[in-house]
Amino acid sequence: MNKQIDLNSDLGESFGQWKMGNDEAMLSIVSSANIACGFHAGSPDGILQTLIAAQKQGVTVGAHVGYPDLVGFGRRNMDIASNELTADVIYQIGALKGLATAAGTQVEYVKPHGALYNTIAHDKRQAMAVIDGILAIDNSLTLVALAGSPLIGWAKESGLKVVAEAFADRAYNSDGTLVSRKLAGSVLHDPELVAKRMLQLVNEGGVVAIDGKFTPIEAGSICVHGDSPGALEMAKKVRELFELQGIGIRPFAGKGGQA
Amino acid sequence: MNKQIDLNSDLGESFGQWKMGNDEAMLSIVSSANIACGFHAGSPDGILQTLIAAQKQGVTVGAHVGYPDLVGFGRRNMDIASNELTADVIYQIGALKGLATAAGTQVEYVKPHGALYNTIAHDKRQAMAVIDGILAIDNSLTLVALAGSPLIGWAKESGLKVVAEAFADRAYNSDGTLVSRKLAGSVLHDPELVAKRMLQLVNEGGVVAIDGKFTPIEAGSICVHGDSPGALEMAKKVRELFELQGIGIRPFAGKGGQA
Amino acid sequence: MNKQIDLNSDLGESFGQWKMGNDEAMLSIVSSANIACGFHAGSPDGILQTLIAAQKQGVTVGAHVGYPDLVGFGRRNMDIASNELTADVIYQIGALKGLATAAGTQVEYVKPHGALYNTIAHDKRQAMAVIDGILAIDNSLTLVALAGSPLIGWAKESGLKVVAEAFADRAYNSDGTLVSRKLAGSVLHDPELVAKRMLQLVNEGGVVAIDGKFTPIEAGSICVHGDSPGALEMAKKVRELFELQGIGIRPFAGKGGQA
Amino acid sequence: MNKQIDLNSDLGESFGQWKMGNDEAMLSIVSSANIACGFHAGSPDGILQTLIAAQKQGVTVGAHVGYPDLVGFGRRNMDIASNELTADVIYQIGALKGLATAAGTQVEYVKPHGALYNTIAHDKRQAMAVIDGILAIDNSLTLVALAGSPLIGWAKESGLKVVAEAFADRAYNSDGTLVSRKLAGSVLHDPELVAKRMLQLVNEGGVVAIDGKFTPIEAGSICVHGDSPGALEMAKKVRELFELQGIGIRPFAGKGGQA
Repeated sequence: MNKQIDLNSDLGESFGQWKMGNDEAMLSIVSSANIACGFHAGSPDGILQTLIAAQKQGVTVGAHVGYPDLVGFGRRNMDIASNELTADVIYQIGALKGLATAAGTQVEYVKPHGALYNTIAHDKRQAMAVIDGILAIDNSLTLVALAGSPLIGWAKESGLKVVAEAFADRAYNSDGTLVSRKLAGSVLHDPELVAKRMLQLVNEGGVVAIDGKFTPIEAGSICVHGDSPGALEMAKKVRELFELQGIGIRPFAGKGGQA
Repeated sequence: MNKQIDLNSDLGESFGQWKMGNDEAMLSIVSSANIACGFHAGSPDGILQTLIAAQKQGVTVGAHVGYPDLVGFGRRNMDIASNELTADVIYQIGALKGLATAAGTQVEYVKPHGALYNTIAHDKRQAMAVIDGILAIDNSLTLVALAGSPLIGWAKESGLKVVAEAFADRAYNSDGTLVSRKLAGSVLHDPELVAKRMLQLVNEGGVVAIDGKFTPIEAGSICVHGDSPGALEMAKKVRELFELQGIGIRPFAGKGGQA
Repeated sequence: MNKQIDLNSDLGESFGQWKMGNDEAMLSIVSSANIACGFHAGSPDGILQTLIAAQKQGVTVGAHVGYPDLVGFGRRNMDIASNELTADVIYQIGALKGLATAAGTQVEYVKPHGALYNTIAHDKRQAMAVIDGILAIDNSLTLVALAGSPLIGWAKESGLKVVAEAFADRAYNSDGTLVSRKLAGSVLHDPELVAKRMLQLVNEGGVVAIDGKFTPIEAGSICVHGDSPGALEMAKKVRELFELQGIGIRPFAGKGGQA
Repeated sequence: MNKQIDLNSDLGESFGQWKMGNDEAMLSIVSSANIACGFHAGSPDGILQTLIAAQKQGVTVGAHVGYPDLVGFGRRNMDIASNELTADVIYQIGALKGLATAAGTQVEYVKPHGALYNTIAHDKRQAMAVIDGILAIDNSLTLVALAGSPLIGWAKESGLKVVAEAFADRAYNSDGTLVSRKLAGSVLHDPELVAKRMLQLVNEGGVVAIDGKFTPIEAGSICVHGDSPGALEMAKKVRELFELQGIGIRPFAGKGGQA
């Protein structure tokens, strides 16, 4: 049986008249779409259009929940109280569930966005607030978490399904952590190289770290981007190489899910 | 068998640090709580607290959807495109459904708020956008609409359940319409009088209009307010008189529903 | 002495991570920049960058005030109370004045945006609320108003300076009003034709209306757009033809102003 | 010559239909009003009403700038980039200056609010971003800063006028820092005691710390609150005792200023 992996990307990030990304193009590449829920990006009508397009393409959808910070695009750390964060997460997932129903599909997973994603990878208080929120609305949802982060254990202990995620365009340290964006070489720009690394990830269970050592990374999904022509090209290359090598691109959850 | 009626009120209208209304007090008076959904009022944590309190009190909850106008409290007419309004309605109902699930209850109906309520009572384009939104997310929901308005027919024709609503503190014209707020006598302030009028409504199927004639009003729910000490007192009086006269106060939908 | 005219365009319309328009390119074409003030578009840092660029290019800046409707981009009619609208206008102009000071320039005029622009061209109540707001903060500011609209008279009677504006890409009726966007031919797309029409406007004081008759239009400024490659091309053509024909492109207000 | 001091309080914190505080009452007690600018609280029309009332009462006004976090009331730490924070500060001060002009008064100082206030007392990066913003719009403004904090030095070195501030209702450590709100006894509730402490502050230049030692506190202004009946009572007591003891209550800046 062939190996398989999920490709995910952030979609539905337009807001009113402001367009962002190329949702149509990405929906032909990825198996899972992280859809903005209105707090850091996404307005209801635009989200609905993206959900309808995802449904047509058979792409699984997840809630891309974020901090309530539209002007900062959810990329600024916020020291938000646990009860408020839990309710914010429920609200966003609920809103997306409603729109997904209208689009004839359903929300299968949750992937926190931006500063919230990075914070809960390591901050247990905020992590538990997010986990509590997901469980409170639908304990069948899967959480997408940074591969190698303590969040994975916290979610499992709480009874939440988790999928670990690798980043196609990021360099890794040999301990399996991401190279800080502040350091040179942290972000990869060569589509061919990135595609080969992701092939290695699927076939060998890890990638070559920035110090040259092979680093195991346990990941059930790979995050690709589509917010620039270069990013879109890179995502296409990853898919093309996977298809060429017989790697199945399959969502980790939902109807076409691997489980 | 005793007559019965539903009492509804707007709750969950606090926003962050700003408090509004007396949700706890009103939950001991009404059978149905119209809960703000975040667009004109309500922040997720506060909405969740109100939903939890409603669940504990056994009060049925509905989505109080509004225009996206926080600073204007949803009271300003907005000429919003149909596809945007439909998506806004779905988003708000979905968000409230999510929070209701977390609170151990569920959304049973939809009552539009403020300018949206008044507009769709007569504007078919916006009315159909709201109806489409409700049907798209959950066609088992009931719409609460102004008694005597064309909205009731549009909703029924669309296959949506409808409950007509009377306002306890408003004077009526003899054609069954509300006396305009711009006219003297349009708003009633005497709790005793209001309670007696509502008793008449339940027992006789109408009230005495501003011109002295009896006016039939077909209503399955009565709206009362709790946003001032005077309003709260009036709501209490209505409930007390109903209880004294053996009128059942029962939600029109949900577990304790009349249907 | 050569004839001269002002060219204005909407700038500073990006919001956080969402980019809109090509401010740098437009600043080399126009003499007056209508800068968004944060209510329908524009976030403080982005507005400041645009103001700094305008200052460097010697382009006069004005406050592009709008309704408080970010998700609707200020394009939806709002029935806003006069005292609220007046305060909203003052707030926006004040915010832009502050940022302009930081950028080493100053706000010289006010051009309402979108639905507010269209509404006050004919609705006296909202028009007076805007006029009152402008006068309350700085009675030396000039209002940019739709050529031929009653707003021009209301502003003058109130003691406010006014400049009438024509739209380069719009067809006119022979009574001097704009052809409704709902009708075929209302928006012009041929850059050459548009440039020639604007040359006619400057040289002959009017354009050929949609019914073929020459229509006088008294305008001190011409609005051009830069929000698409086609719009940018059109704006360039207008400028090029004006330069070729010796028409001076000069702001109607500020240091380089015509007055 | 009698001693004198400034009393300041946060005002203009209502938002649309949501009311907060008792601005009228506080304006008869304080000499300086910190007015919300719309980012954490305050909507334009309400701000304008408060400014008009302050002007009538002869109370000096300052800009109470905050993080862009309405639902969190600016009380949540935000890791905001320096250029964004600088522009946010300029925008808010500009908006308030505009409304102040309309109210016949002018902004004399800046007091950051909530999480921003606490952060910049010790975080140099954000502090410099705020200082840069103030200087960029109006270098005659005074910054109100926490007594004893490093912010005071940073502001002075930058050429910004500073006034140190003490909190009437807070306990102090013997090193002059505030007792953490997490510790018992950090907040004082007895109006008589608080008034006497503030009298001591003015007359002796310090207060008795939580460990019983006298602690020097160099403060040119005392912050009092009005957001609850108890707080209002306390503020009144402070003023009454000052008046009884012949302490002048005078703004540190503006027309009635001490300088």
